[in-house]
Amino acid sequence: MDAIMLLGDSLTQGGWEPGGFAQRLAYRYARRMDVVNRGLSGYNAEWGLEVFRQVFPRKDQKGAQKVKLLVIWFGANDACLPPKVQHSPLPKFTENMNALLTLVRDPTSPYHSPQTRLLLITPPPFSALQRGSILASRTPPEPLDRDQATTRAYAEAVKAVGEAHGVPVVDMYTELWERAGGEEGMGRFMHDGLHVNADAYEILYDGILDAVKEHYPELHPDNMPFVFAP
Amino acid sequence: MDAIMLLGDSLTQGGWEPGGFAQRLAYRYARRMDVVNRGLSGYNAEWGLEVFRQVFPRKDQKGAQKVKLLVIWFGANDACLPPKVQHSPLPKFTENMNALLTLVRDPTSPYHSPQTRLLLITPPPFSALQRGSILASRTPPEPLDRDQATTRAYAEAVKAVGEAHGVPVVDMYTELWERAGGEEGMGRFMHDGLHVNADAYEILYDGILDAVKEHYPELHPDNMPFVFAP
Repeated sequence: MDAIMLLGDSLTQGGWEPGGFAQRLAYRYARRMDVVNRGLSGYNAEWGLEVFRQVFPRKDQKGAQKVKLLVIWFGANDACLPPKVQHSPLPKFTENMNALLTLVRDPTSPYHSPQTRLLLITPPPFSALQRGSILASRTPPEPLDRDQATTRAYAEAVKAVGEAHGVPVVDMYTELWERAGGEEGMGRFMHDGLHVNADAYEILYDGILDAVKEHYPELHPDNMPFVFAP
Repeated sequence: MDAIMLLGDSLTQGGWEPGGFAQRLAYRYARRMDVVNRGLSGYNAEWGLEVFRQVFPRKDQKGAQKVKLLVIWFGANDACLPPKVQHSPLPKFTENMNALLTLVRDPTSPYHSPQTRLLLITPPPFSALQRGSILASRTPPEPLDRDQATTRAYAEAVKAVGEAHGVPVVDMYTELWERAGGEEGMGRFMHDGLHVNADAYEILYDGILDAVKEHYPELHPDNMPFVFAP
């Protein structure tokens, strides 16, 4: 079985929730491709780059499972405000995202994989209301650790990276923000102000399948036979 | 990442449903072990044996993902009545289940894997009321294709195979039958008379974690660190 690999932070790790995007993809791609979840709660793109080097098959690696689709979703932690250790300045974030794509696409890279299709996801908005009240209730109370304009800038950076490399992007930031009608409505897509719920994951899942249908139709489940006979 | 491999029929394939046992295990074991679902709708143990030979790593295979826990769940299709093509006579079913365990445990087997812990699941009861009314509504109407005493005998066979090999068994047949209070109540655990729903999968998930805790505590998620640093 070939694989869809999901690389990201807690938003990806939590994709195994009932209704999460990993669960939905695994169900839909059953008997066609495995879903390999390499989401690590708390990670930013810089640390994700190190994870990539340990989990993505090197081109000289024999017998490794083939990654046909790599979905990369970072930015939510990179965008948190200093002094949070996960903060990564915007130029550094862009550099790391570029590096991830280059590792897969550059023929001189030890991870060069022409068979791997790529997909980027923008970080979602957070809910300042939910997140703010959770932080304010701590002892001692903590100030808000994110800023919507900053997170939006990281989402824009992902779109720019995708455009520069010709890689499709599912723009979760804009999707959720517009459907929520801005800040006031964001709560309905979130568990806790940061982590999206099954309603948001459904939008992401639909966005991924739409992007696959448009850009990589050979990987759409409708176009893939079962590996073992029905 | 090491893996939990699930080998079985549609009950296993459907484990990727929201609330299914594959989804629940994947969520619980996130960052500890992958869940590799090799459930194939419609398969019996005879065909499962052929699948095993293609999906389980051979001992001479370098770089393959290690299967630390193999969960085998057949019998529901084997137990259907002739002339259904999936029917497999009880002695043949027992032979195939024995063969699966022997392939993993016998030092002369090309699949010998001392690192793989084994777990068997008994086939669940079906709901004669639900299944009967679905078949009766077809054009032309079809007779019931299963018999509760027969399915129960296949469940007993799985228990006997487990006992003979010293392999723990999660007895889904008895668990569901007793909780349902017999035939009348079976519908509450099923989608369509054959395929179990999220309530039944929760019982299975709990049963698997209990068995792991008792027999293979080193594989219980509470006892496994994250592969990558928190």
